[in-house]
Amino acid sequence: MNQDSSVRENKGPLEGKVILDLTTALAGPYATLLLAGLGARVIKIENPSRGGDSSRNNSPYVTADGLSVRRSDPDDMSVSMMVRGRNKESMTLNLKHPDSRQVFLDLARRADIIVENYSAGVTKRLGIDYDVVREVNPKLIYTSISGFGAQGVSGGDGKAMDTIIQALSGVMMTAGEPGDPPVRFGLPVGDLVAPMFAVIGTLAAVIHADATGEGQHVDVSMLGSLTSLVACEPFDALESIGIPLRTGAYVPRLAPFGTFRSADGWFAICAPTDTFADGALRAIDRPDLAADDKYATRDARVHNADELHDLIAAWAADKPLGDVLRAFEANRVPVAPVRDTAEAVRDDLVLRRHEVVPIVHPRFGHIDGLYGSGLPVNFSRSATDLSQPAPALGAHTDAVLAEMLGFDTAAIEQLHAEGVL
Amino acid sequence: MNQDSSVRENKGPLEGKVILDLTTALAGPYATLLLAGLGARVIKIENPSRGGDSSRNNSPYVTADGLSVRRSDPDDMSVSMMVRGRNKESMTLNLKHPDSRQVFLDLARRADIIVENYSAGVTKRLGIDYDVVREVNPKLIYTSISGFGAQGVSGGDGKAMDTIIQALSGVMMTAGEPGDPPVRFGLPVGDLVAPMFAVIGTLAAVIHADATGEGQHVDVSMLGSLTSLVACEPFDALESIGIPLRTGAYVPRLAPFGTFRSADGWFAICAPTDTFADGALRAIDRPDLAADDKYATRDARVHNADELHDLIAAWAADKPLGDVLRAFEANRVPVAPVRDTAEAVRDDLVLRRHEVVPIVHPRFGHIDGLYGSGLPVNFSRSATDLSQPAPALGAHTDAVLAEMLGFDTAAIEQLHAEGVL
Repeated sequence: MNQDSSVRENKGPLEGKVILDLTTALAGPYATLLLAGLGARVIKIENPSRGGDSSRNNSPYVTADGLSVRRSDPDDMSVSMMVRGRNKESMTLNLKHPDSRQVFLDLARRADIIVENYSAGVTKRLGIDYDVVREVNPKLIYTSISGFGAQGVSGGDGKAMDTIIQALSGVMMTAGEPGDPPVRFGLPVGDLVAPMFAVIGTLAAVIHADATGEGQHVDVSMLGSLTSLVACEPFDALESIGIPLRTGAYVPRLAPFGTFRSADGWFAICAPTDTFADGALRAIDRPDLAADDKYATRDARVHNADELHDLIAAWAADKPLGDVLRAFEANRVPVAPVRDTAEAVRDDLVLRRHEVVPIVHPRFGHIDGLYGSGLPVNFSRSATDLSQPAPALGAHTDAVLAEMLGFDTAAIEQLHAEGVL
Repeated sequence: MNQDSSVRENKGPLEGKVILDLTTALAGPYATLLLAGLGARVIKIENPSRGGDSSRNNSPYVTADGLSVRRSDPDDMSVSMMVRGRNKESMTLNLKHPDSRQVFLDLARRADIIVENYSAGVTKRLGIDYDVVREVNPKLIYTSISGFGAQGVSGGDGKAMDTIIQALSGVMMTAGEPGDPPVRFGLPVGDLVAPMFAVIGTLAAVIHADATGEGQHVDVSMLGSLTSLVACEPFDALESIGIPLRTGAYVPRLAPFGTFRSADGWFAICAPTDTFADGALRAIDRPDLAADDKYATRDARVHNADELHDLIAAWAADKPLGDVLRAFEANRVPVAPVRDTAEAVRDDLVLRRHEVVPIVHPRFGHIDGLYGSGLPVNFSRSATDLSQPAPALGAHTDAVLAEMLGFDTAAIEQLHAEGVL
């Protein structure tokens, strides 16, 4: 929940929208997590015969005794599910069971949005693809996230794992120096960027549907999403005229610019302008160099970037990080410590803005130090919320069927007995 | 424009929405680029006294003679502006001139959305902050992208450059190995992720406004956006129980998994399951090892990850990349070449899906090899388009004032003469 405000409503901007969530793993569930955080009702449909979303079976788990690589109790829940399942309802439905189809279509009739991240072609085999669903609900938005797009690729897109997408997108060759090996990124950007575009596409389609009554299929590819970001600048065209992409810790064409080591930690400075560069030289006790031909202009600094970066590195190497930061700050040079992820996710400001939030187990509560993604948008009127613990598998099955479809207890019991639920 | 379809409309899902774009540099303009690609009318308001958006003055430029680090003709346009200015109209308005305020408010009265990425506090000083604009247009969505959030930070957020945000977010410590220096990412993720969340917040607020008539302020921070992604997994909690984040080229807990070198290029494989691992061992001509105690189970492979990775590395080192890829593919192991950005943005599938698109100069046309971000969402009914060349500074000033505000030629000329436009 965001901070209070006199005009604040206690509802998310998507309040009232119902989403059927057919996603598993990371890319799909992150999309529906964002939609849930915006106030949509997300009903996560899980296959009961395989223990639900594969994320439920990712080690490690939160147990009564804290974090553990193994689970021993039905209440133990994977950290992955605790993060990605927040603010969602869980119902079981075996989509391979012939009797499941009518239940699914009856739910689809009442939903506003479906999100799925099956491999291309699977929804068609299951008989729940967009062409089927649009017949029962023409206003519905049906969003598909796949490795390479809804048309599929030869050999299938089973290989659409984050590291494969990173490799193909060019992103691994944007860090390091020329000739260095590729740099695998520990943050799964391939898995995270596609769902963000899927949410953008879904919301744009909702705006269109609310205005016209017309739903549609929204097709987002992991490779296309990440590659579109890699194309934010025409890096190879720039290299052709001498502006290299891979320049390691420093960016010579913006010198002084890059990451440097102090006695007890790393820091980054960004000082490409005359004013900033002048401040940097004062910070390292060399105000005399501001008028030196070697550093007085941007062109000169670019030409002598190595020497300039060496000067800063030598000055900082034996000084405490705190002193280094203060020296640059006092001279109004953009500077920051390089933080590790543990420190970054505990940033007071970020926590206060709910961009990162504590993660809570439905039974064991908050485990000290366990944080997860918040919804990094602050609305002046609408609320956002990602504080509700992830549900146990099937926790809402009966309630959803009773409330949305009017099923009585006997009907629900029969579906359980038949293995449909 | 996306591929044709019998039900396809020739309009974007945001057709009819009018956006006043007060953004400069990268983070803000990327947000309005996405909104333009979705069909909104984006009117870019630029300060005439400083040559407009700073991106117009970023070297290199497209000239009549191709790409150049210097410009010599008024028609020369920076590559940054050519990419980020697409599908936008440009009008000049000097927001520091006292007579500009009424023009701005009259435009705001007719707009659906304003997007700005001034440093926190600047719109208030200019008298164009949300509290002012809501008075003339209560339904308007007013989206702010800043370094650390609309509340500002001590010392101001002038230092909110991508590398500073990367340093603070923890993202630099997700690549490399323990003890390695931070890894600066050449892709400006800090600048790119915040606008994606800003678009998500804007569209959600539009849905709310269309339903209720109530607009609001949408406040997105670069640091919060990127840190929320870093919190997608509780990396430090996982490290506390022996699951390290920084593991370099390989991921031992998923072995065999990582990037390897062939005779003529790098490749990635992801083979954590028994089936995939078995395929990998067959691919490297060691089917005998699939039954070996050292590699037969996932636990065993994790325990012997170094040896397993060394086996693969040794096998691949002297083989052509094509042969290596074919060997893994034949055994159904997820594998991909590690591509550089030049190859990645020319991927046939990605170009066909318009996730990356050719960049066109308004006068000199397409320069061979110049590609930029597309809108990586394919709608079955709505169109997307990012093919319209970026406008020259102020190209639409007179037309916007005449059409939207009914100004006649004399009134427009007077505003030009006074330095308002």
